[in-house]
Amino acid sequence: MIQRLCVIGLGLIGGSLALALQRARSCRQVVGCARRDATVQQAKALGIVQEAYTDPVRAVAGADMVVLAVPMGAMEPVMSALAPALDEDTVVTDVGSVKGAVVEAAERVFGAMPSRFVPGHPVAGTERSGVEAAFDSLFQGRHVILTPVQQTAPRALAKVTAMWEACGATVSRMTVAEHDRVLAATSHLPHMLAYALVDSLARRDDGPQMFRYAAGGFRDFTRIASSDPVMWRDICLTNRQALLRAMDAFSENLSTLRQAIESEDAQVLEAIFSSAKAARDRYVSQ
Amino acid sequence: MIQRLCVIGLGLIGGSLALALQRARSCRQVVGCARRDATVQQAKALGIVQEAYTDPVRAVAGADMVVLAVPMGAMEPVMSALAPALDEDTVVTDVGSVKGAVVEAAERVFGAMPSRFVPGHPVAGTERSGVEAAFDSLFQGRHVILTPVQQTAPRALAKVTAMWEACGATVSRMTVAEHDRVLAATSHLPHMLAYALVDSLARRDDGPQMFRYAAGGFRDFTRIASSDPVMWRDICLTNRQALLRAMDAFSENLSTLRQAIESEDAQVLEAIFSSAKAARDRYVSQ
Repeated sequence: MIQRLCVIGLGLIGGSLALALQRARSCRQVVGCARRDATVQQAKALGIVQEAYTDPVRAVAGADMVVLAVPMGAMEPVMSALAPALDEDTVVTDVGSVKGAVVEAAERVFGAMPSRFVPGHPVAGTERSGVEAAFDSLFQGRHVILTPVQQTAPRALAKVTAMWEACGATVSRMTVAEHDRVLAATSHLPHMLAYALVDSLARRDDGPQMFRYAAGGFRDFTRIASSDPVMWRDICLTNRQALLRAMDAFSENLSTLRQAIESEDAQVLEAIFSSAKAARDRYVSQ
Repeated sequence: MIQRLCVIGLGLIGGSLALALQRARSCRQVVGCARRDATVQQAKALGIVQEAYTDPVRAVAGADMVVLAVPMGAMEPVMSALAPALDEDTVVTDVGSVKGAVVEAAERVFGAMPSRFVPGHPVAGTERSGVEAAFDSLFQGRHVILTPVQQTAPRALAKVTAMWEACGATVSRMTVAEHDRVLAATSHLPHMLAYALVDSLARRDDGPQMFRYAAGGFRDFTRIASSDPVMWRDICLTNRQALLRAMDAFSENLSTLRQAIESEDAQVLEAIFSSAKAARDRYVSQ
């Protein structure tokens, strides 16, 4: 049971976490913190938090669990603002999409990774963002990956694990590097492909006509291109190396496919499509 | 009103068309034709057709509307088999994904494009295939693109238009080249990207782990990679030029994005993501 939860950043993820924990009756009090006063008021009005502030130092006072749910680019400034105000035994976790950058930021701010700071990432979200998009079942049946480091305290890890399990999520552990590699390939790369595809259609003179005839597959395929541009800019910048490697591996694959099309190699085409279909049917539910 | 509809090829598209026209009471009789006897029996058992044959010549006898709903690779052999058996005023249309190749095949088989042959393409489908996947609302609210040529008879065009409108589709017209260019960019290219992405993950040693953590975006993005490999092999081979051009335009775009990531150009990244988000939000419904 969390006594006083403080969520820094009241967007889709932070807001949904606050709602899920209240629904699960897994915390007594929820305090929020947002940059803009309008968000603070809205979060209170929506019943997402009981108290909320624009000042993070006021928000964390007395909290036993602090969750950093701000965009990647805001992680370090927020940590710097909070560092002097955190109680000695407050557990801290974050929801950033790139773990290497969060750990590096924490090391810069705190000197070394604090034992009570558990880096984490709920692999969940929608293409919508903002506090008004929050809902209490966002994490139900989803994966949350925690990436504890050598000095992470078992007590802190257990507390963060219990928090996410209370939201209905399946919690697993990876190293920081492993997490960033997996997410680059399965999330960051697909977002780049969707953005590049939509952008290349939008640039055409006949773009509007193109979109008019785009069928269901296109709609599904490009849904993620409606995600928040600033969040994705930050993800690109902070997971640069892993993302570039994933993009290069993809481009090499696409170029093999292109070669088979150009040379009209029916056998290679059918083999590529069959193996991809088999893999997707095996691993991914509809 | 169609007196006797003959659907050659009882897969998702052919089966769904037969069901939709029966539901709309827009045809008196539906005859089907499939290569395998098992499919013939299944289509009859499912109430998709009243009569069905494995011999296309028997199937088209007395039909006033013949729909070729076979994979692209089977269009020409099927036309050759049918050519001598078609009544003088039977209207013929097809559902092939690539119109240039269908028109070329018809020209080879019939000497010139027959005036009663209306090339068409329902922009609809799911990642499932086969007669058991057919359902009567597949075309409801979807686009059907007809690509009449110079010699196409207005009466034939009107009859095919009415058929698709009876299924709840919106019918529009394009030139053959325009259709193939639009579909290359909005359908064929996204399928290539999904296949290449899934295949590149499947080839990794840590592939199974990759798929385990793939979130909703990845599921949506790669759904189309579960499509029929043979159908997509044929689409690649028959829309080769337009598809290669679309792939090259995409790759150029992706490489601009890669460059911005490599050089940590935050402004360019945000601009690309914002413009793509704006275009998708403007043109594509969720």
